Amino acid sequence: MATSEPRATGGDQDPNSANLRPPSGRFLQKNNSLDEKGRLAGQKNLLSCDNSDRDARFRHTETDFSNLFARDLLPAKNGEEPTIQFLLEVVDILTNYVKKTFDRSTKVLDFHHPHQLLEGMEGFNLELSDQPESLEQILVDCRDTLKYGVRTGHPRFFNQLSSGLDIIGLAGEWLTSTANTNMFTYEIAPVFVLMEQLTLKKMREMIGWPGGEGDGLFSPGGAISNMYSVMIARYKYFPEVKTKGMSAAPRLVLFTSEHSHYSIKKAGAALGFGTENVILLSTDERGRVIPADLEAKIIDAKQKGYVPLFVNATAGSTVYGAFDPINEIADICEKYNLWLHVDGAWGGGLLMSRQHRHKLSGVERANSVTWNPHKMMGVPLQCSAILVREKGILAGCNSMCAGYLFQPDKQYDVTYDTGDKAIQCGRHVDIFKFWLMWKAKGTIGFEQHIDKCLDLSQYLYNKIKNREGYEMVFDGVPQHTNVCFWYIPPSLRGMPDGDERREKLHRVAPKIKAMMMESGTTMVGYQPQGTKVNFFRMVVSNSAATQSDIDFLIDEIERLGHDL
Amino acid sequence: MATSEPRATGGDQDPNSANLRPPSGRFLQKNNSLDEKGRLAGQKNLLSCDNSDRDARFRHTETDFSNLFARDLLPAKNGEEPTIQFLLEVVDILTNYVKKTFDRSTKVLDFHHPHQLLEGMEGFNLELSDQPESLEQILVDCRDTLKYGVRTGHPRFFNQLSSGLDIIGLAGEWLTSTANTNMFTYEIAPVFVLMEQLTLKKMREMIGWPGGEGDGLFSPGGAISNMYSVMIARYKYFPEVKTKGMSAAPRLVLFTSEHSHYSIKKAGAALGFGTENVILLSTDERGRVIPADLEAKIIDAKQKGYVPLFVNATAGSTVYGAFDPINEIADICEKYNLWLHVDGAWGGGLLMSRQHRHKLSGVERANSVTWNPHKMMGVPLQCSAILVREKGILAGCNSMCAGYLFQPDKQYDVTYDTGDKAIQCGRHVDIFKFWLMWKAKGTIGFEQHIDKCLDLSQYLYNKIKNREGYEMVFDGVPQHTNVCFWYIPPSLRGMPDGDERREKLHRVAPKIKAMMMESGTTMVGYQPQGTKVNFFRMVVSNSAATQSDIDFLIDEIERLGHDL
Repeated sequence: MATSEPRATGGDQDPNSANLRPPSGRFLQKNNSLDEKGRLAGQKNLLSCDNSDRDARFRHTETDFSNLFARDLLPAKNGEEPTIQFLLEVVDILTNYVKKTFDRSTKVLDFHHPHQLLEGMEGFNLELSDQPESLEQILVDCRDTLKYGVRTGHPRFFNQLSSGLDIIGLAGEWLTSTANTNMFTYEIAPVFVLMEQLTLKKMREMIGWPGGEGDGLFSPGGAISNMYSVMIARYKYFPEVKTKGMSAAPRLVLFTSEHSHYSIKKAGAALGFGTENVILLSTDERGRVIPADLEAKIIDAKQKGYVPLFVNATAGSTVYGAFDPINEIADICEKYNLWLHVDGAWGGGLLMSRQHRHKLSGVERANSVTWNPHKMMGVPLQCSAILVREKGILAGCNSMCAGYLFQPDKQYDVTYDTGDKAIQCGRHVDIFKFWLMWKAKGTIGFEQHIDKCLDLSQYLYNKIKNREGYEMVFDGVPQHTNVCFWYIPPSLRGMPDGDERREKLHRVAPKIKAMMMESGTTMVGYQPQGTKVNFFRMVVSNSAATQSDIDFLIDEIERLGHDL
Repeated sequence: MATSEPRATGGDQDPNSANLRPPSGRFLQKNNSLDEKGRLAGQKNLLSCDNSDRDARFRHTETDFSNLFARDLLPAKNGEEPTIQFLLEVVDILTNYVKKTFDRSTKVLDFHHPHQLLEGMEGFNLELSDQPESLEQILVDCRDTLKYGVRTGHPRFFNQLSSGLDIIGLAGEWLTSTANTNMFTYEIAPVFVLMEQLTLKKMREMIGWPGGEGDGLFSPGGAISNMYSVMIARYKYFPEVKTKGMSAAPRLVLFTSEHSHYSIKKAGAALGFGTENVILLSTDERGRVIPADLEAKIIDAKQKGYVPLFVNATAGSTVYGAFDPINEIADICEKYNLWLHVDGAWGGGLLMSRQHRHKLSGVERANSVTWNPHKMMGVPLQCSAILVREKGILAGCNSMCAGYLFQPDKQYDVTYDTGDKAIQCGRHVDIFKFWLMWKAKGTIGFEQHIDKCLDLSQYLYNKIKNREGYEMVFDGVPQHTNVCFWYIPPSLRGMPDGDERREKLHRVAPKIKAMMMESGTTMVGYQPQGTKVNFFRMVVSNSAATQSDIDFLIDEIERLGHDL
């Protein structure tokens, strides 16, 4: 881009500026030539200032984008007007999308198979080419991209742990991308670095670490946050691994529940422990770790000559929403001197609720905590924090002191530069949207959101627990918003338990899900777990969902599944 | 949020909806009560539809946000109007910021020390509280956040490898955050998943892999992309490490230039190799790896009984912008059967330029390549790709086959689900802005941008190479846009070389930089390198920069540094 640029300070002439504009590329100017008069009618006050604020207010007018190209936008000479009009046109598309997202008369998605989209839907061509497209086509591309996507903010989208579309968070993301900076130094992200520091402290206070002391970072997601926890634990007990590698340590083992997120295993593989050294812990029927099993496996590992290092307790498991008993696990970790990590990617948000935070009782005894505001707290993706009780260990583990980035001789207090604590170099600004949401809602706003989601899932649980055609995957009120159940079509209701029924039941949820997606009415996840055949996992984190949407989901499952 | 919600399908009543709205919280409604008439004057056509398109067009009107709160926005009942008005107000702030960013009469930054911002600047309070703030205050917070930040898109911001503010990319990011979805499955990101696939193929074609075959992913940054390359290399030669850990492999060593990015060392530490097993290669005076040194160090490692695994060749080093001789390095890698990775985070963009792509000659022989469009190609942060020549190895290395996320029995071709190839679970949508920019500029648009940036840096080089008061850090035309130089204040010009001069010169760049930041006129980086004292590293990736901005930078350095 930038084939012609403003020359406010004058002087230099870009020799290429003339021939870079193709013959068809017309330029939007204040002094319109006669032949453009018709097209530009009504555009005279394109940039109108209708109040006395320091910032001029832009007026959105009709613009013909068919002869405008990216090269006509800022920093091009006279690019300001087309730039503002183009951005306002995009915003028009986006605000319409937002409006429809919350409208139950619109579909959650308009499903197409990969080959259909690849072949090009009504002119929506995904292929890239050497030559530029007009801005008009770019706007069409934006509309089509949204049209064939999935409305994750729709009140009936229940498919993932992250759902909903928070308006304040959205505004925060728009600002973040406009600021387009990087978290690694205070120098280029002063405000965001401080917001991160204050917000992490607040989160540590909620965890219960004295004075909110400790350390932390926002990372690109829960899997990376969990990976940090394993790295830090290893550095704490075997700091020489940083320089000498895993051969400097004995055979180290990690413990995590068989219901825990696969990222602990991924971290085990990536960091050089090996997945065989990630020992899976048995759970009770509700998916919670059995502490005695942990202790038995620690003893077993020690007897084999291995060195237990790290225990992950899950606060809100992915499928069952189970909370491992942190206090009992912490007792064992203290007894055997192990690092305790709490993976609260999904359940961490419950710390904001006075009614539900007891489910994480003992979290203050953890050495590190993963907590993803982009899940239960409705913050737009991505927003995940790794929080660490011991100060300095994150930097100790990861710092390489790259002189070209982290100069010690800057004029400000360089302890605010966060880059060397991270395994990343550049780091996206994930804090602002979260900070802004916290400002706009207050802690009580998050609490109300969480309490409401949990109320809704209890509503679902109460509705189906004794309903004909439903079987719960586990008994009792769910700990989190996860409600796991089988829908049993009439054809299977009388059938005795056995392989045939199991095989048939295994195929029910995928079939219903496929029909749901094809009709576009709602989305909910399913999966098998252990020996249990495919069941639905309903989760609520979407702030737009109401009891009527829960009712709708159940009606829809029955409508689609009745004749299976 | 979401304390009251629309009830399109009626039925359920949220028992909390009444008491969650504080007494002061007024609600914007179409039927205004009399006492609100004044405040809401002029808002009658809030939602005006002034064309016959399927999408209504919103009109931005004056709204009093002082009594509106986040809870009054969608999904709240009647939340549509305040939602649209709030978003348009935010957009007004953002478009004003965009406009000023390109205006050379505005400062690049308004510098404050951390303690100043923490104390609160003119009511800008970073602290979070239990109670919500009004939307009016939220809008003020947005303005202040931008006010005290750094304009990374300003034509005189040269501080980082990522700079500039691309308008199409910005629009792409706004859309991405509105879509708010996740790359892990085709199911919830059908369009984005296909865009990623097509774009990665296009990038592989530019690398020169036959038919664009291979694999890849967008990752949260160059450091993570480089980490992927080391993981995959290890998996290729020692797949058992995935399950058994590093103890299943001999002592493995990695090779990278002493000028390379620290992320290779960070990966060595994180993945369990140990930084001592990351062997640094000597470079020539231009910062390029000396192939003979690589071969000597391979032989030396083998003689010690270690196993050479991986060589990183840098295409565009961070400080000097040096391109390692890939073909010569590839010869050695073939001879010793080593994985060749090319870190083109900074230099990969030159593949888009017919004039400059020869600098990466041999890249088609690499096994993997890192390429960050968010650097030289001006794509907003974050946008980094790891590209792999061998298909399937990325999945082999990272897959854990989590049944709850990647169900094999979906109705579509699940080979489009990318999640299990990644070390992440959720993955941010980084592709759309890049795809949209490619559409809008075409390949030739990127080429023109890159050629122009390189022309500008050659302009700078020509201007200062023989100018009084300047010394170049290395001789000859820079390979990339990096121009490294010392400014020698008059007081040091006659001084003989020696410790005193070195010590004094070491302090010059930090002092000038501090004054630059405090005056807010421009920003450029400095650092020491090896035995060389602090020097300026000028880089150009900002599409808004012109020769006049280069002139300005030099004038500014001389103005600020003259009396040092």
